[in-house]
Amino acid sequence: MTNALRLGIAGLGTVGTGVVKLLSADADRLAMRIGRPLEITGVSARDRTKDRGIDLDGIAWHDDPVALARADNVDMFVELMGGEGDPAKAAVETALKAGKHVVTANKALLAHHGTALARLAEDGGVGLNYEAAVAGGIPIVKTVRESLAGNRIARVFGIMNGTCNFILTMMENEGVSFAEALAEAQRLGYAEADPTFDVGGLDTAHKLAILSALAFGTEVSVSSVYVEGIEHITRQDIRAARDLGFRIKLLGVGVETDSGVEQRVHPTLVPMDSPIADVQGVFNAVGVTGDFVGDLMLEGQGAGAFATASSVASDIVDIARGHVAAPFGAPATALKPYRRARMRAHEGGYYVALELYDRIGAVAAVAQRMAEQGISLDSIVQRADLAEPNGASAKGEQTRPVIMITHDTLEKSMREALANIDAGGHTARPSRMIRIERF
Amino acid sequence: MTNALRLGIAGLGTVGTGVVKLLSADADRLAMRIGRPLEITGVSARDRTKDRGIDLDGIAWHDDPVALARADNVDMFVELMGGEGDPAKAAVETALKAGKHVVTANKALLAHHGTALARLAEDGGVGLNYEAAVAGGIPIVKTVRESLAGNRIARVFGIMNGTCNFILTMMENEGVSFAEALAEAQRLGYAEADPTFDVGGLDTAHKLAILSALAFGTEVSVSSVYVEGIEHITRQDIRAARDLGFRIKLLGVGVETDSGVEQRVHPTLVPMDSPIADVQGVFNAVGVTGDFVGDLMLEGQGAGAFATASSVASDIVDIARGHVAAPFGAPATALKPYRRARMRAHEGGYYVALELYDRIGAVAAVAQRMAEQGISLDSIVQRADLAEPNGASAKGEQTRPVIMITHDTLEKSMREALANIDAGGHTARPSRMIRIERF
Repeated sequence: MTNALRLGIAGLGTVGTGVVKLLSADADRLAMRIGRPLEITGVSARDRTKDRGIDLDGIAWHDDPVALARADNVDMFVELMGGEGDPAKAAVETALKAGKHVVTANKALLAHHGTALARLAEDGGVGLNYEAAVAGGIPIVKTVRESLAGNRIARVFGIMNGTCNFILTMMENEGVSFAEALAEAQRLGYAEADPTFDVGGLDTAHKLAILSALAFGTEVSVSSVYVEGIEHITRQDIRAARDLGFRIKLLGVGVETDSGVEQRVHPTLVPMDSPIADVQGVFNAVGVTGDFVGDLMLEGQGAGAFATASSVASDIVDIARGHVAAPFGAPATALKPYRRARMRAHEGGYYVALELYDRIGAVAAVAQRMAEQGISLDSIVQRADLAEPNGASAKGEQTRPVIMITHDTLEKSMREALANIDAGGHTARPSRMIRIERF
Repeated sequence: MTNALRLGIAGLGTVGTGVVKLLSADADRLAMRIGRPLEITGVSARDRTKDRGIDLDGIAWHDDPVALARADNVDMFVELMGGEGDPAKAAVETALKAGKHVVTANKALLAHHGTALARLAEDGGVGLNYEAAVAGGIPIVKTVRESLAGNRIARVFGIMNGTCNFILTMMENEGVSFAEALAEAQRLGYAEADPTFDVGGLDTAHKLAILSALAFGTEVSVSSVYVEGIEHITRQDIRAARDLGFRIKLLGVGVETDSGVEQRVHPTLVPMDSPIADVQGVFNAVGVTGDFVGDLMLEGQGAGAFATASSVASDIVDIARGHVAAPFGAPATALKPYRRARMRAHEGGYYVALELYDRIGAVAAVAQRMAEQGISLDSIVQRADLAEPNGASAKGEQTRPVIMITHDTLEKSMREALANIDAGGHTARPSRMIRIERF
């Protein structure tokens, strides 16, 4: 097999196995399209004896992925182990330093070390592709890096965690609580036994950090992402939002503002008639607003062995065709230092949920605290049927849920208003707010 | 400016002007990303004196686009004139034969001569990119050609004509007739004075033919596309569809079947809860189903100077970066001859609209004609409020509209059933059917 591109694949979990299946199922067609065959010459995984339903005969086995990364008969190192640290990091660095191309699905690695790895790749004149690291099968990395190259991008946003979207969709459709929806997601294999990484928003933060760097031409900065999870979303929130014309989604949002780049992951009210509101269940969707393209949205499977393998394969094919671009579109040395916009300077609308004691003057006091911060209200809803079953306060005094939607205001003002409201003693529980994103 | 990629742009209408604006607004950023500057060295258009709001100082003017295509100081010919024939065809051929890269937004040219032009490009070792030819700003060409390279594609479909989607959306939202919605589209500049090309489905057919070749690895065959426009869709259809849980869209659909590739453009009932049903107004959306990626959908602006310029720019940047792929993914010589699946062999559900005389036995007769063809019915709706204002027949005899939804059946059977029903004399007007597509 002269001229074959020789692949070393590290990590044979569901994604790695999916990639091996794709490459062997379609070997001839791919070779014809690329103009050269792809050949898997080495693999590495933890357990050599496990039956994965794939034929590894004649392929060199390496217990150590770093050894595979530097093997002489490997032109491209495909890293599908995951994890921000070693051995993934050491193996990818080894491969890049040895002048080998790298394809990875590792969002944690890219989110934490993306800029440095891109420099290594560019210094070595090799490719570093990572389509599968953001939103699984959705080709958003290539779209932002290449298809939107002529655009200045103002905003990227997306539903990039299928577990959270499944839970929120189920809470709305079935009227169940967060805990019940999570349990069902775990039963179906959509959520891990420890779901913190997904429902807490960290997984989305990793993907957003990568996407923001691509979109805004900055260094990757995952530590700058403001993160809030969906654990505190109640049935009441879902129902009230729907009545007001919104749906609640866990969004990752990156926006270029005058004071820097705002990166945030949080539950978000999105207008019911916006395309992102219609993304249901485990599906993902990513939207981009560019100065020439306008609004563009991609929707598809954000996880799963096969959809992820599709993205890994496209990365391999691109490099095999000789198409090597700077990993983040702009050369790594030209990426701007990340300038963080403070969340307190964020401007937007808010959904506010209060549990007010049923006293004369309580609503007036709340309205007064809002007015003091210059916050104007778009709507107020006070309805008994929004009360949670355990709505009565500990003191036994009657309470009632009050929901407010504000016009655009500063986050700083909003936080102060809520602190003042709670300090005033009219609320039975800490007041909560959920940000609104308009499209 | 050493090492600059020198562009010759033919056609300075809204798209051409948009491209010039994009390239000059962003020249430094693009040069940094590409690693070399882009320079417009020549242009060609009909009217030299027209003020286009762009600075053409120092750029050579050619009255003849073919002369521009062969100019010594042009490395890439950007064809934005349109039209399947000359001068666009002659100019593109001239450029390719002269070893120059070509970027074009010309769907008619690609739909009619795509295979031959791809061969010319590959023979010359140059690029032929046409992202803007299909669905404007949506990067569906690159997605299918590159991002889904690892997939066998089973189906492509899309809303690829904003004029039709605007009209259908308006008919539903405002309850107006086709003629009224068309007039409004014309008033807003979304429809031409002669709207036939758009509302008759030909524009969508061009785009579908290109997309099918990309998806299925066949030669381009626009003459094999079955085409039906939206001119005959009534308010009654829109309302009845909605009541039954569907929305009507003009879709282009390409499917690989056992008997060949089915390419069809027609009004289509799509389930209300499918993502494609939510695509509103002038927006476009294209969906692809692949064996690994599953369902993927891209939604964005399908027309307009700026969105189209975004796609043209991405084509230019790709080639400037040295990324030249076979125009249709597979080498042109390896494209399979197009094998056409007959529409009569199409299998799917149907919406059937009858205007029945109000006679005992009329419905029974209709049901009998359906049963003879082995067609089973999913639902029948017979409601007075679905009648059009001019519902009474010419004979003065009372009629009533009857709507039926069938289970999957052969198109051949459906056509025969309708012919037999109309021959039976119980219908006041020719019976109509609209195909259903499920997602």
